[in-house]
Amino acid sequence: MRNKDLIRTQRITEAESTAIFNELAKEGEGLVPVQRVKDLLSTNGISSEDPRLNGSLSLYSRLQKEPETMLNQSGFKQLLKHSDLVKRAFRKELVIPNFADFRNDVKEIFRKVEGNTGGEIDESLPHPDTGGDPAYAVSVCTIDGQLLQLGNHDLSFSIQSISKAVNYAIAREEVGRQKLHEHVGVEPGGENFDVGMVLNEDNLPHNPLINSGAMMTANFIKPEMGMDDRLQHVMQVWEDMMGKKEVEYKKESFEAERKGADKNFALAHLMKERGAFPEDTDLETVVSFYLKCCAIEVNIDDLAHAAATLANFGSCPSTGKKVFKHDTVRDTLSMMLSSGMYDHSGEFAFRVGLPAKSGIAGGIMIVVPELMGIAVYSPPLDSHGNSVRGVAFCEALVDRFNLHKYDAHYSWEHGKKDPRKRGD
Amino acid sequence: MRNKDLIRTQRITEAESTAIFNELAKEGEGLVPVQRVKDLLSTNGISSEDPRLNGSLSLYSRLQKEPETMLNQSGFKQLLKHSDLVKRAFRKELVIPNFADFRNDVKEIFRKVEGNTGGEIDESLPHPDTGGDPAYAVSVCTIDGQLLQLGNHDLSFSIQSISKAVNYAIAREEVGRQKLHEHVGVEPGGENFDVGMVLNEDNLPHNPLINSGAMMTANFIKPEMGMDDRLQHVMQVWEDMMGKKEVEYKKESFEAERKGADKNFALAHLMKERGAFPEDTDLETVVSFYLKCCAIEVNIDDLAHAAATLANFGSCPSTGKKVFKHDTVRDTLSMMLSSGMYDHSGEFAFRVGLPAKSGIAGGIMIVVPELMGIAVYSPPLDSHGNSVRGVAFCEALVDRFNLHKYDAHYSWEHGKKDPRKRGD
Amino acid sequence: MRNKDLIRTQRITEAESTAIFNELAKEGEGLVPVQRVKDLLSTNGISSEDPRLNGSLSLYSRLQKEPETMLNQSGFKQLLKHSDLVKRAFRKELVIPNFADFRNDVKEIFRKVEGNTGGEIDESLPHPDTGGDPAYAVSVCTIDGQLLQLGNHDLSFSIQSISKAVNYAIAREEVGRQKLHEHVGVEPGGENFDVGMVLNEDNLPHNPLINSGAMMTANFIKPEMGMDDRLQHVMQVWEDMMGKKEVEYKKESFEAERKGADKNFALAHLMKERGAFPEDTDLETVVSFYLKCCAIEVNIDDLAHAAATLANFGSCPSTGKKVFKHDTVRDTLSMMLSSGMYDHSGEFAFRVGLPAKSGIAGGIMIVVPELMGIAVYSPPLDSHGNSVRGVAFCEALVDRFNLHKYDAHYSWEHGKKDPRKRGD
Amino acid sequence: MRNKDLIRTQRITEAESTAIFNELAKEGEGLVPVQRVKDLLSTNGISSEDPRLNGSLSLYSRLQKEPETMLNQSGFKQLLKHSDLVKRAFRKELVIPNFADFRNDVKEIFRKVEGNTGGEIDESLPHPDTGGDPAYAVSVCTIDGQLLQLGNHDLSFSIQSISKAVNYAIAREEVGRQKLHEHVGVEPGGENFDVGMVLNEDNLPHNPLINSGAMMTANFIKPEMGMDDRLQHVMQVWEDMMGKKEVEYKKESFEAERKGADKNFALAHLMKERGAFPEDTDLETVVSFYLKCCAIEVNIDDLAHAAATLANFGSCPSTGKKVFKHDTVRDTLSMMLSSGMYDHSGEFAFRVGLPAKSGIAGGIMIVVPELMGIAVYSPPLDSHGNSVRGVAFCEALVDRFNLHKYDAHYSWEHGKKDPRKRGD
Repeated sequence: MRNKDLIRTQRITEAESTAIFNELAKEGEGLVPVQRVKDLLSTNGISSEDPRLNGSLSLYSRLQKEPETMLNQSGFKQLLKHSDLVKRAFRKELVIPNFADFRNDVKEIFRKVEGNTGGEIDESLPHPDTGGDPAYAVSVCTIDGQLLQLGNHDLSFSIQSISKAVNYAIAREEVGRQKLHEHVGVEPGGENFDVGMVLNEDNLPHNPLINSGAMMTANFIKPEMGMDDRLQHVMQVWEDMMGKKEVEYKKESFEAERKGADKNFALAHLMKERGAFPEDTDLETVVSFYLKCCAIEVNIDDLAHAAATLANFGSCPSTGKKVFKHDTVRDTLSMMLSSGMYDHSGEFAFRVGLPAKSGIAGGIMIVVPELMGIAVYSPPLDSHGNSVRGVAFCEALVDRFNLHKYDAHYSWEHGKKDPRKRGD
Repeated sequence: MRNKDLIRTQRITEAESTAIFNELAKEGEGLVPVQRVKDLLSTNGISSEDPRLNGSLSLYSRLQKEPETMLNQSGFKQLLKHSDLVKRAFRKELVIPNFADFRNDVKEIFRKVEGNTGGEIDESLPHPDTGGDPAYAVSVCTIDGQLLQLGNHDLSFSIQSISKAVNYAIAREEVGRQKLHEHVGVEPGGENFDVGMVLNEDNLPHNPLINSGAMMTANFIKPEMGMDDRLQHVMQVWEDMMGKKEVEYKKESFEAERKGADKNFALAHLMKERGAFPEDTDLETVVSFYLKCCAIEVNIDDLAHAAATLANFGSCPSTGKKVFKHDTVRDTLSMMLSSGMYDHSGEFAFRVGLPAKSGIAGGIMIVVPELMGIAVYSPPLDSHGNSVRGVAFCEALVDRFNLHKYDAHYSWEHGKKDPRKRGD
Repeated sequence: MRNKDLIRTQRITEAESTAIFNELAKEGEGLVPVQRVKDLLSTNGISSEDPRLNGSLSLYSRLQKEPETMLNQSGFKQLLKHSDLVKRAFRKELVIPNFADFRNDVKEIFRKVEGNTGGEIDESLPHPDTGGDPAYAVSVCTIDGQLLQLGNHDLSFSIQSISKAVNYAIAREEVGRQKLHEHVGVEPGGENFDVGMVLNEDNLPHNPLINSGAMMTANFIKPEMGMDDRLQHVMQVWEDMMGKKEVEYKKESFEAERKGADKNFALAHLMKERGAFPEDTDLETVVSFYLKCCAIEVNIDDLAHAAATLANFGSCPSTGKKVFKHDTVRDTLSMMLSSGMYDHSGEFAFRVGLPAKSGIAGGIMIVVPELMGIAVYSPPLDSHGNSVRGVAFCEALVDRFNLHKYDAHYSWEHGKKDPRKRGD
Repeated sequence: MRNKDLIRTQRITEAESTAIFNELAKEGEGLVPVQRVKDLLSTNGISSEDPRLNGSLSLYSRLQKEPETMLNQSGFKQLLKHSDLVKRAFRKELVIPNFADFRNDVKEIFRKVEGNTGGEIDESLPHPDTGGDPAYAVSVCTIDGQLLQLGNHDLSFSIQSISKAVNYAIAREEVGRQKLHEHVGVEPGGENFDVGMVLNEDNLPHNPLINSGAMMTANFIKPEMGMDDRLQHVMQVWEDMMGKKEVEYKKESFEAERKGADKNFALAHLMKERGAFPEDTDLETVVSFYLKCCAIEVNIDDLAHAAATLANFGSCPSTGKKVFKHDTVRDTLSMMLSSGMYDHSGEFAFRVGLPAKSGIAGGIMIVVPELMGIAVYSPPLDSHGNSVRGVAFCEALVDRFNLHKYDAHYSWEHGKKDPRKRGD
């Protein structure tokens, strides 16, 4: 992993600028067409709509409207100097320096995984109409905002239990580690009502990513506000993580879940009976607020963007907005690693080794710390409630790249590729 | 055990009548004062208000208004002939033939047990004011209506979980064994949320005397009626078991329990989630109806009377009304034996060997089949939730009398007394 | 239930003797053939080999060698006077007065149940060769020694877990209730390793009829003796219960069980780890002794006889030997009722309502207190490990007779027959 | 994290050599005393006995015998050229470049933690005599072999459950992931006999770091060999991890554990009963071999060295010997992270975020991948069975350094030190 701080502070030298200019303009004309800059950005996964390129005062913003413009050396150097993103793309300083290679690899994995047609769709939820074949999409967003989009990435779906991870982050940020964890544990387990104890030895939910713990956790988010304001607040955080993209609350999804919310009410009442909630807690509010957060709808690209904010330790890759503190993200990733994939969490942490959170609508949000966020969407679920293709994609991904938490970074014995490597 | 049917049908002979008259009148006057008949009935536990004596056309009813009346032989024989109860009392044919002895024994046990001052009162419930010392009362009612009253027997208290046994009998009577037990099991266990499975392998409550099973069972009682009518219906059954004594529904008790009903709601929702309830079941109704039945208030004498109706296989000892069929009572007693005393049920069945049901207000209802019903009331509870003195009383009782289900009847090796024995 | 004590002490009057003589000899000859006495005894289930008839000095013993002998009135009266069993048979004073009717009913039930051909034989055990069809036999022995034998009653089989009930009785008799139950509980449950707790809250086995508790209990039987002597001691008790019939220890059965004894060793080690055994306990001895007791082989008639000794509160019906005290039997029956039929115990206690113990070789021993012992043998087992036909036979039996612990004795509302009834 | 591969391959330039020489010799003499080289190595944690310095043909090896020798520029440059370790130390290229600072920080933490005097020593085990105060020692060994030793680091102690992690690595290396995990799961949990299931849904141990799983795993290590050879084999692997230091097998420790091995035997028998072991498995061998591996005794410095071999993805830092493959180490670290600290594992992974394995003798082995191995030894244990000071040390360590698995590497928001940083 490169020391990004150092890299980011380094100024580009005249000599380097000249070399880049010469490389681009080497065909002898002494000029670089703006289109060529556009192409290079695109190859590196930088969207032409990236807000970092498109500030109203941005040089690049103005140039890109006229892609046929030819830049001379002075103009080109000015562009490099004023646009950090352009400069870093040219210098192979983006976090995935060879993005085109990476894209090809991921595309290959995506296709290979497509054949996994097993699993059952949870029909109690509304799903987008994809005319027969179940939806399948993957989106990657690096901490430098490099994007990769595969499959039906224009669909939107409800986040369901993925909300648990972000709600934990919100509550953890607002309430603090100590106070929050006086009310919810950090040990894995507790998914199953019949095996072992429903609550831990302190009569608390085992962790914030199982239903009981998720309700407990959500209950700490702006409890003084009304239901609508609380939901708006959570949606605002999601939008901040997504670089200001809009999310929607889908009432139909909420209503579908509210109807069959008996397990959640059972857990809520059990917790109240054991004194886990304050005396005057209204459980209808607890359960409904939790379920409303689950009914937030997102587009897969935006979900990857949100994941990238976590990968970037709380700073949104495109807007730079600091959404969560470092320690909030660290704890969120810890919880996702140990408990994010239902009863399959231990196996996933062992086999894939990445913090992730899945939802029964078919989405999975995966975080590769200091590298990228990934979102997979495919509704058919396995017996644990995780997207079949989602899990298969993650496994294939870590089989090709050294992304497992305990894959070595400076030994190549594992025979995997390192997407962070400049590979000069 | 005597064959009561035969005994009851036997006519009294002239010779026997004469012998009894002579015994009572032996002092040479040739007359028997009505007071002497009254005293003998009283000695045998027959209350002067027993409805069987006091029908408007009853000879005894008329006579007892003038206790100084002297009966000659012809008048006395007429009394014996027309009043079955008087005749049986004189012939020592009541189910406890030597009731005075029995009363002395029970009184001794009652006093001995009084010293057990341990236990904790459940302060979440309203309790009658007894000015410091916790209430303590025992009442016995035989299947022939012989009564024995000790301690604070003028107090009334809420039946709480004792309702489970009677609600089971009501539902079992109305719905039938087969249909009812498609929805609730008959195995002991399931008291504890944390140990073992909350529901059995078929996702049903383990039995009708734990909370989950009691709610399920109550749900089968007149589901087509409104809440008030359903409660009236249950209270009517209690009144029938008690020989038409009135019971009250105590709103304060209900409200106290409703406030802390989280465990019950947790169970209800869990059952609904597992498909144990029909789709459209309203759980607020399920829980509230169950809790309202628990808030029925009874006097201890009346509770013993109700128990005697069970001991008498469903016929009220005083009114003769058939409240439950034989098979309903058999199944109710089976459930009470295996599961009536919370987590102490197995120990109680082993040590005491009698079907019983306790409630957290401090009452216990005990049934000695074909002999008597017993009620004990003393609010301090042990760790299992059973009345400390109640359990101690039952233990002392079976140590003196052969009432354990597996105490021998015709061998005296156990060295216990048999209250059924005529001991001529 | 008749008061047998009274009946037994009554002398036969001259008038009664004459009446019986006249009835038997009424055809005008004034003589009663001995064969007719033999026939009556046989009709009443009294075997011609009954030791009570065949003492060396017994009048009947001598007479029966010459069945063609004709008794005149004086000889007949002498027989009645000197042979209590003959007298009681003639007077319909045996515990099942109309044994021929009873035999017909049971035979009908036996045939009806034969059609239940489901279940799986435990092939890890040796079974007697019955040439294809699985063995099926029922035997009844009343507390007066009346016998009823149906099916393959000449086969012998290993008692397996039936040993648990008798070992409990032996240990309970020798060690006493208090001391024994400091080491083993009395609550049902604990069959299953995965559901709930393996040991109870005091780290003891839940009860003496599950494997853990049975090993604990057996460990209290003559611990000071060597293995062979201990086994001999247990076999001696069985023989005493059976009226001195011989039992065998089948080494092959032991070896088959010892090979697969891992569950038992697991339980034994777990108990030792929890401090349930004394420090220096040798677990190989514990497990082997328990398994050797399971490998005792019995004939079904003898097993019914042993059950009748329990029904008779510890006195052997044929020899009169007092094998167990009343209280030992009471506690043994309590444990059998609550825990004798593996995981089906609660259901069995509810549905059948009789103390019973089953073994995986296919035997079940059932006790009807103060009436009779029953043994059923049929190797195919249901999922709980109980003989399919054995359970079906018990259910059909209590559907016809009022033998359920909470069937009424003096009300006929249940519509069942009472085999105890003289039905004059 | 620096890209060590690149760094290692880089040749030192003449200019750089000259600069270093001048720095060391700058006092004007134009000579560098060998002692000064020795001091610098020592400051960087390189022991004077490091085998990499002391090969028989090593220039440094010869020089260090005469520390008063003065090196001129040419001699110094030769040293740099021929001794990679010396060169890297001088260039601040060792994995902890500022080892003196790091040592000071760790020393401060060590002292602070010393005050935690709570916990209970497991007296069933032999412990080294430390004259009253319980032993306390910490040792660090980086992947470049830099050493840091604090406290009683001359004591040796039995590894106990730390053996589980290394045995897993050995079996995983020899048998392969797929085959091994057909016999043992990877989910956390299963520590407690009474809570939840002892074996997982496939009737296998939950993971290789609980007793059941550890016995299962050890059973795959050279099963064809005799007990002594198997133990020798395991000890050989430990020695390889420790850079050829000798380990001892302590019979007394084994015997102490064998005496109280009932829990292990219970688990072994349970597994065998469920078919988890091959039919002919001898459980005495299974349990004893596992316990003998637990009785291996190590010195704390050597334990840190072994941990460093894991941190170095299987290559011994001092000898370079490849003990385990990359994938073996990855899986071992995954298991240690999720399940290495008994019932405290989830909390430890959340709070400390490092793979670790503790033993009841008081040792903990901690791995910071691609950085260092750490060993802590302090016998007093908390309620989970982990060394009280050991856990406190780990917590304090990650509070000061960014060693938690989800501490950022290139953001300093966490305010922690990065020991990997050159901090020029």
